[in-house]
Amino acid sequence: MTTRCFLNGRIVDQQGAGIALSDRGFTLADGVFETIRFRAGAVVDTQAHLERLAGAMECLAFPNLSNNEYDLARHLEDTREANGMAEGVLRLTVTRGRGLRGLAPAPDAVPTVCITAGQLPSRPDSFTAHISTRTRRNEFSPLSRIKSLSYLDNVIALQEAGECRADDAVLLNARGNVACFTAANLVARFGKDMVTPPVGDGALPGTVRRRLLERLPITEISLTPADLERADEIISTNSLGIRRLSAIGDGILPPERKLFDAASEIYRGMV
Amino acid sequence: MTTRCFLNGRIVDQQGAGIALSDRGFTLADGVFETIRFRAGAVVDTQAHLERLAGAMECLAFPNLSNNEYDLARHLEDTREANGMAEGVLRLTVTRGRGLRGLAPAPDAVPTVCITAGQLPSRPDSFTAHISTRTRRNEFSPLSRIKSLSYLDNVIALQEAGECRADDAVLLNARGNVACFTAANLVARFGKDMVTPPVGDGALPGTVRRRLLERLPITEISLTPADLERADEIISTNSLGIRRLSAIGDGILPPERKLFDAASEIYRGMV
Repeated sequence: MTTRCFLNGRIVDQQGAGIALSDRGFTLADGVFETIRFRAGAVVDTQAHLERLAGAMECLAFPNLSNNEYDLARHLEDTREANGMAEGVLRLTVTRGRGLRGLAPAPDAVPTVCITAGQLPSRPDSFTAHISTRTRRNEFSPLSRIKSLSYLDNVIALQEAGECRADDAVLLNARGNVACFTAANLVARFGKDMVTPPVGDGALPGTVRRRLLERLPITEISLTPADLERADEIISTNSLGIRRLSAIGDGILPPERKLFDAASEIYRGMV
Repeated sequence: MTTRCFLNGRIVDQQGAGIALSDRGFTLADGVFETIRFRAGAVVDTQAHLERLAGAMECLAFPNLSNNEYDLARHLEDTREANGMAEGVLRLTVTRGRGLRGLAPAPDAVPTVCITAGQLPSRPDSFTAHISTRTRRNEFSPLSRIKSLSYLDNVIALQEAGECRADDAVLLNARGNVACFTAANLVARFGKDMVTPPVGDGALPGTVRRRLLERLPITEISLTPADLERADEIISTNSLGIRRLSAIGDGILPPERKLFDAASEIYRGMV
């Protein structure tokens, strides 16, 4: 079956679709996106994703899409349906649209909106991580708090992890505190205390992180790499699921799963 | 006349050309670029640009393009000629190519290579700047030292400058030292001393900066915002030219132009 995508108002074949060479999403990473799971034929937590996207667009002073007659919740569902899939993942990308040369946006730029669908990644529940030394998260930038197209630091950290035979990387911020994994939030448990790095430390305000903060007594507090070494349990959370960290660097974590089980139950209940 | 561009080995009409929705340059800013001037029908300082591009590609572990039979110097000249322009600017972009979902590159990814041509911007020799408070340059990231597609912090800083009625912004790094303008290096003069922020402070190793360091007794040294206030002269340098800063925030700079004149002469002599 041909892959179908949503591009600027219409469902089209992805094969023949293209982004203009002058699109600022391509030339300057001037755009934002959401990765959204769908399950049993329904898109999960749509409003949380669309709220975060709207916040990111406001941060970058993008025009309001509803003025351009977009109904993103419907377009997400349409894209899922056009691909005839019950389980999978959608990516919704919005850029500032075509640009002229240079950094200043064209005054009449119209945002580019695209939605693509893909299979859920198949991966084990547990994973290992390396603490990145090659790059850091920039907590002084508003980009650390929105899901923009600027993902290259995360790619670099993941490459370094691969060279160290780890599955993922932990990114530290400029001050040396823990921020996140390359594509997921980090939550740790120390005995009865559950903690996660605050957004001010460079943690993206993840949608699953949000639901866990609503349902579990998790405290937002700065964590150091040394703190991670003495954790009883560490999990990663993103829209694709909850995973359990089995080792960080040379340190093996205890085989406990209280936090993992509690978070997984909340994740499975998300609609 | 139709705009022509170079895309993956061929000169084509830019109007009909497109980048795949799965291109990692579009989805993750996973690419690098160069902005290159041409003058009197000749591309300026081609080798310096191609050396910097090669360094950036190596930093990101991109495959070597010459293995894919690219001759970038020739493709730059071909693109200029195809547009029948004697004066203007080329943008050469190389991305990691198409990707799967997620951050890990596809093992068989083939880089996307495109070159577009444009007019030189028309702008006065002097400009004003605001010191950005909204974002910072991340000197802990290798991206501060290569010209990657991650340009959104610079866009944010330029937006803030516009709201403050300034033409451009000075970006500070995480430590609070001066790094650069949004799309240019910064060189300052204090009496007989000429200085520019070191690459370790988040300054991009600009090609014009490189030529000035070779020809003028400029010292690479950290600068604070307070230093800028007492400068006798500040200039911006990039491949499109040398400009003179007339005011920074509320402070007016002296109307001196020794550094500006010396740098402009070197710039005009670049071939």
